Amino acid sequence: MGEPVGPAQDEPQIDWRRLEEVQLTPILSASLDAFYELGYHGTTVREVARRVGVTVPALYYHHENKEGLLIALLELSTADVLARAHAADADGGDDPVQRLANVVEAIVLRMTTRPRLASLEGEVRYLSAENRQRYRAVRKGIEEVVLQIVEAGAESGAFDVDDPAEITRAILGMCQSIPRWYHAEGTLSPQEVARKYVAIAMKIVGAK
Amino acid sequence: MGEPVGPAQDEPQIDWRRLEEVQLTPILSASLDAFYELGYHGTTVREVARRVGVTVPALYYHHENKEGLLIALLELSTADVLARAHAADADGGDDPVQRLANVVEAIVLRMTTRPRLASLEGEVRYLSAENRQRYRAVRKGIEEVVLQIVEAGAESGAFDVDDPAEITRAILGMCQSIPRWYHAEGTLSPQEVARKYVAIAMKIVGAK
Repeated sequence: MGEPVGPAQDEPQIDWRRLEEVQLTPILSASLDAFYELGYHGTTVREVARRVGVTVPALYYHHENKEGLLIALLELSTADVLARAHAADADGGDDPVQRLANVVEAIVLRMTTRPRLASLEGEVRYLSAENRQRYRAVRKGIEEVVLQIVEAGAESGAFDVDDPAEITRAILGMCQSIPRWYHAEGTLSPQEVARKYVAIAMKIVGAK
Repeated sequence: MGEPVGPAQDEPQIDWRRLEEVQLTPILSASLDAFYELGYHGTTVREVARRVGVTVPALYYHHENKEGLLIALLELSTADVLARAHAADADGGDDPVQRLANVVEAIVLRMTTRPRLASLEGEVRYLSAENRQRYRAVRKGIEEVVLQIVEAGAESGAFDVDDPAEITRAILGMCQSIPRWYHAEGTLSPQEVARKYVAIAMKIVGAK
């Protein structure tokens, strides 16, 4: 399943609670809009070029093809959430409870503030087998962060779990479903949703 | 948000644990295949007609347009899960613990055995505003089933929850994410996944 995914040794500390927009090039920004509005298959490279105001050859100078645009967006998106999850985990020190609380908070903040990027997930099945594999390896990295915390808590007796892998998927699953119902104009702030989901995650792991 | 959604008075009892395939007409079956492989926007009515072996006018005789095909599939799918959830709930009698266990089991069985239908969810955002509203009202019906159980358990003291609506969304969210990782050829049977998710749901509601 490829290289293990983790933070580089000299990675600068990022502020995982800060919710600035992901920086996208104009081409990727237009691609994200088009994929969201028209779907991956409904989007043409010509349409993206039109939105950016560049020629199709100019676009091909930066990205190999339409799949290349989707991959670039998915990689930015997963790299961002992975870096935040690692930083949030590190901030929790040695305490599994604090580590899990931080990582769930980081993931929920990202789901509530970047629903369009998060919704690209659904287009992954259209990638070529090779690229799908590559993308899943990165996603696996996020699962690994949570799994290691759940296992550490089970070992130390801080959590009461008998199937860490299943518990990890359930926690990530409830977080990943947030973009289905969350609306920025609703009554709950991202921070409130995060607080509630941290409390639910604690129940799932049976934190003492 | 439209009519309240519930079982009809004289609805025959369905066996919510039985996992037969949803019966689809040849046109809807081909539409489901095409939407899954090519995405909603990547599918043309001509492509569906070609797969079924009928002419485009023959297809239009049954369905108004491409959106009509997606709506028909979504309605079949949500009506199926709603009927199963109601039957599972009724089977639990007056006991909130048994009612919740049954409904989570019914939903998980459906997510593990019908991942293609379940994945149509992602295409809902492409519906016209009116149809999106109609579809969400039906989905709301499923949320209502779970919410009523969680509230009943909170009132009776069987559950320990302070925010039934949020707890309901978290439980449904973890179930709806199952198609992202579940593969029929994997090591877990649908029944095993259901058993694990019932146990997790019990932790989330703090069942006594």
